[in-house]
Parts: sequence; C-alpha cells; structure tokens
Amino acid sequence: MKLLRFGDLGLEKPGILDKDGVIRDASSVVADYSPATVSLDLLSILANIDPTTLPAAPKGVRIGSPVSRIGHFIAIGLNYADHAAETGAPIPKEPIVFSKAPSCLSGPNDDVMLPKGSVKSDWEVELAIVIGKECDYVEEKDALKHVFGYAVCNDVSEREYQAERGGQWIKGKSAPTFGPLGPWIVTPDEIADPQSLDMFLDVNGKRMQTGNTSTMIFTVRQIVSYLSQFMILEPGDVITTGTPPGVGLGMKPPVFLKDGDEMRLGIAGLGEQRQKVVAR
Amino acid sequence: MKLLRFGDLGLEKPGILDKDGVIRDASSVVADYSPATVSLDLLSILANIDPTTLPAAPKGVRIGSPVSRIGHFIAIGLNYADHAAETGAPIPKEPIVFSKAPSCLSGPNDDVMLPKGSVKSDWEVELAIVIGKECDYVEEKDALKHVFGYAVCNDVSEREYQAERGGQWIKGKSAPTFGPLGPWIVTPDEIADPQSLDMFLDVNGKRMQTGNTSTMIFTVRQIVSYLSQFMILEPGDVITTGTPPGVGLGMKPPVFLKDGDEMRLGIAGLGEQRQKVVAR
Repeated sequence: MKLLRFGDLGLEKPGILDKDGVIRDASSVVADYSPATVSLDLLSILANIDPTTLPAAPKGVRIGSPVSRIGHFIAIGLNYADHAAETGAPIPKEPIVFSKAPSCLSGPNDDVMLPKGSVKSDWEVELAIVIGKECDYVEEKDALKHVFGYAVCNDVSEREYQAERGGQWIKGKSAPTFGPLGPWIVTPDEIADPQSLDMFLDVNGKRMQTGNTSTMIFTVRQIVSYLSQFMILEPGDVITTGTPPGVGLGMKPPVFLKDGDEMRLGIAGLGEQRQKVVAR
Repeated sequence: MKLLRFGDLGLEKPGILDKDGVIRDASSVVADYSPATVSLDLLSILANIDPTTLPAAPKGVRIGSPVSRIGHFIAIGLNYADHAAETGAPIPKEPIVFSKAPSCLSGPNDDVMLPKGSVKSDWEVELAIVIGKECDYVEEKDALKHVFGYAVCNDVSEREYQAERGGQWIKGKSAPTFGPLGPWIVTPDEIADPQSLDMFLDVNGKRMQTGNTSTMIFTVRQIVSYLSQFMILEPGDVITTGTPPGVGLGMKPPVFLKDGDEMRLGIAGLGEQRQKVVAR
C-alpha cells in the first residue's frame, strides 16, 4: 500500500493511493496518520479495504507529509561509505545519530525555504523508515517487524549551522521545511529488500546524487536495533538513514542551494519529490 | 500558578496546585497539558479560575510529567561557566544545542532506570522552559513573551553513550526515564527573574550540585531567541538550559549512578524531585 496525506497545509486528510494512481480518501477509516494512530494493527485494517470503494480526492490536490507532526525525527549521519569519503570524514564505527526538529517536517513538493542569510544549504536524498511498533532493545533479526513503512526524505542541511556553529548537527538540520517527506509511505509488503533501492537527486535538471541503499554502512535492520539500545522508538517516529554521494558540500568547489533552484529526488518504488527553493 | 499532571502513568489528568498545596483536578477546564492545548490563551483561562472550586485530587496521588508527550525536547550543553570548566571543555562561544528523545520524558519522582550495562550514568539539575507560543526568529527582547512556564528537569546523561559512541550527544541523553520533569510548571507571573534561582542536587543525601541560574552563560531570553533562528519552537516544546557544577563526570575520580541510589533535586520556587535509581 501507498499511504499519504492530502489537502492544504494543516488540514490534510489521510489517503490511500489506488492501483490506478488515484488518491482515495481514507478519513472514514482513520482520523489521520499520526503518532496516535500509526500501528501495525492499522496496517492490517487498511490492507483489508479495497481503496476503489473510497471517495477519490480532488485532482491536483496538494500532498502533505505522510505522517502528521511526528514525535521524533531521527537521522543517521555519514551512512554511505562513498558519501563519508566525499566529506572527508572517516567511516563511522557505529551509527552517527542526530535529530531534526519535528517542526521541520514538510510536504514532498512544498517549497524549501532557505534560512535568513543562509549561504550553505544543501540537499540529501535519503530512505526514511516510519516506525509502527515500540522498539526497546530490539534485536536485529526482529527489527523489520517494527517498521510501518518507507518513504523518501530530503534531509535538507545548512552546512555552516551544522558544522561551524558549535558542534551538534541539529542546528543545521532543523529549519522549517528542511524535512520534506513522502509523497507516500510504502508499506513493507511492497519493499522486498530495503537494501537494494536505487536513489537519485537532481538540482535544476542536473543529476547530483546517484546511489543505492545497498551501499549503506549500517542497514535498516541494524539502525532500528541500534537506536533501540539508546532510546525507545515509538510508533510514528521517523528515521532518515543517510545519504549517498553527491551533496553540494562534497563538490570542488562546494555548490549550495540558492533562491529559485529546483530539486527533484526519488527512490525506486517510493516515488518522487520536487521542491522549489525560496529565500526567506 | 503551578500546573501539574496527576494519576497513573499514561492516565494523568491536568491539575492546578492551590494556595494550600492541594492538587485540584482541572480536567473540566482542559483535556490535558499537551502540545495541542498549551498556549498563552490557556494561561489566561486558567488564571481566571479559583482552583479551590475544582475537585481535590486523591491524597498521595502520583505526579506525572507536567506536559504529556512533548513535541521537541531540546537541551543546551555546557551553559554554566563553572560546569564547562569541570568537564574540561572551553566556554562555548554560542549555545551548544542537542536534543533528548521525547520518549525519555518522565514524572518528577518516577524511578530512573539505568540502561542495560550502563556504568556512566550521571545527574544534571536544570531549569527547563516550556514554550507557550510559536517562536520563529524571535528577538531577545520579546523572548520571554513566548514562555508558558518553568520547571525543574533532571537531564540524566549516560556519559559513555554521550561522548564515546560517535560524537552526537543525543545517544547519551535519551534513555527511557532520562527526562524527569516537574513536579509542576510554574507560570511566568510567579518567577520575577529566571536568572536568579538557586538550584541543588543531592545523591544519597550528599549535596553534589549547588548553583544559581545567575551564572548561566546564555540566559533564558538569549536561548529562546537563539534557537528560533535555527528552528521553529512550538507550544509544548521543552528546553532544558544546562547544569551548574557538581556532576559525577567532574569528580576526581568520576562518580556515577548505581542501582539503589537516590537523587533529590530542586530549584527555588519550582519545587523538588526525588528519584530512585534502578537497574534494568
């Protein structure tokens, strides 16, 4: 299944994409996709519905983030060996964990706003995991049983704020609109292997990132298990799992986003995002 | 006003402490103190109620965290000059920002659980700010107008996870029960100056931390304004603002928490917490 939210910002309704690509309104089944409703039981309930029996959403409707106001927006740093190399960082011995402010969550095609005065904003196509069941000391072999689904995430990053303003990455990862997620959550039954997905990101039509989740240093399974040793993961938490090579910071000389730029990014089976970059 | 939540874990009701120290049940006024309900308007509504007209809560009832499942649990590192010195770190030029998993939030007197195998868990008495109004590029002079109230926080920290496991502090700050908050939120009208509050923390009856918020490097006003340059702060977000000297890591040799220890901590005007330390 492909689960999404549609409608104006703050007024989104839950939906299901049917087999013909039509958005169906699932608000008669579930109030919203949110930390309060996301669960493995909800997956079962939705799987038993024929989406074509639900009303179609208006054509051309805006697509929002596929979960509302998430509880915890966790991110893994330098999780592709070749991306670590391009930034000059050593291969991490264990996952680098940081977080993004939940208020940075954004729709997949909403404008990305540059913070005032920002000159080092950058792109990062990533595979995101949405948690469906509480994780507390989960073993690797059981980790995927806790996944609600997968989605594309653009882990937009301000490199000066991230690296030159006091050491913790959260400062450069949290600006409003820095967390485009979606267009939809794809449920695990449609993703045979989360470690073999092609991914790309274009800026102004030029291919910048090309990668495949097969080159992750730490796999989805390992990340979920690892995080659950340090904190409880809750349903609706989102974990974005790192980016392949090709970010602006890694170019020689570095290239950063500017007002008017357009990003297009996607992951095989998970859909595509498009964002216009605007100055604040 | 002193606003608190009482009842069993997960079933807490909102309350107000009356002038005689009796907990009054405010659930007829507001469903809960949560990111969905916390606002400056709510403060006005509550200020117009005589708490003694509300039903008294059962005597000896458990006190929970004074806000439910917070959206974002932000923390400031090394924000007292003398604490920075004891850890051997330089005085930060600008606030060090990190986050705690929202799932670590805990009642003020609930047990603190040591993560499995933890040998470097530590205490940190801190002044926490609860945000009452969205903050987006807020100037320092306006910052306090966005505060819903203040509370005691124990920013419990696993020093190995924080500093020896990959560089980002979140790993050592997020274990379940590592965020005792309360006993209550004290509204700004009762705190004439948030920069002149005595604070203390005892372990097993021995005074470990003694401090005053007057020695903060960055004030409440500065922290709220600063953070709002990097991310949107939302109502219900909690910011814990750093700890004075006397943490276990700073002792020679270092002293860490062990099964059976008892912590007692407090801030003048904001009440006290007591936690028993238990192994998992």
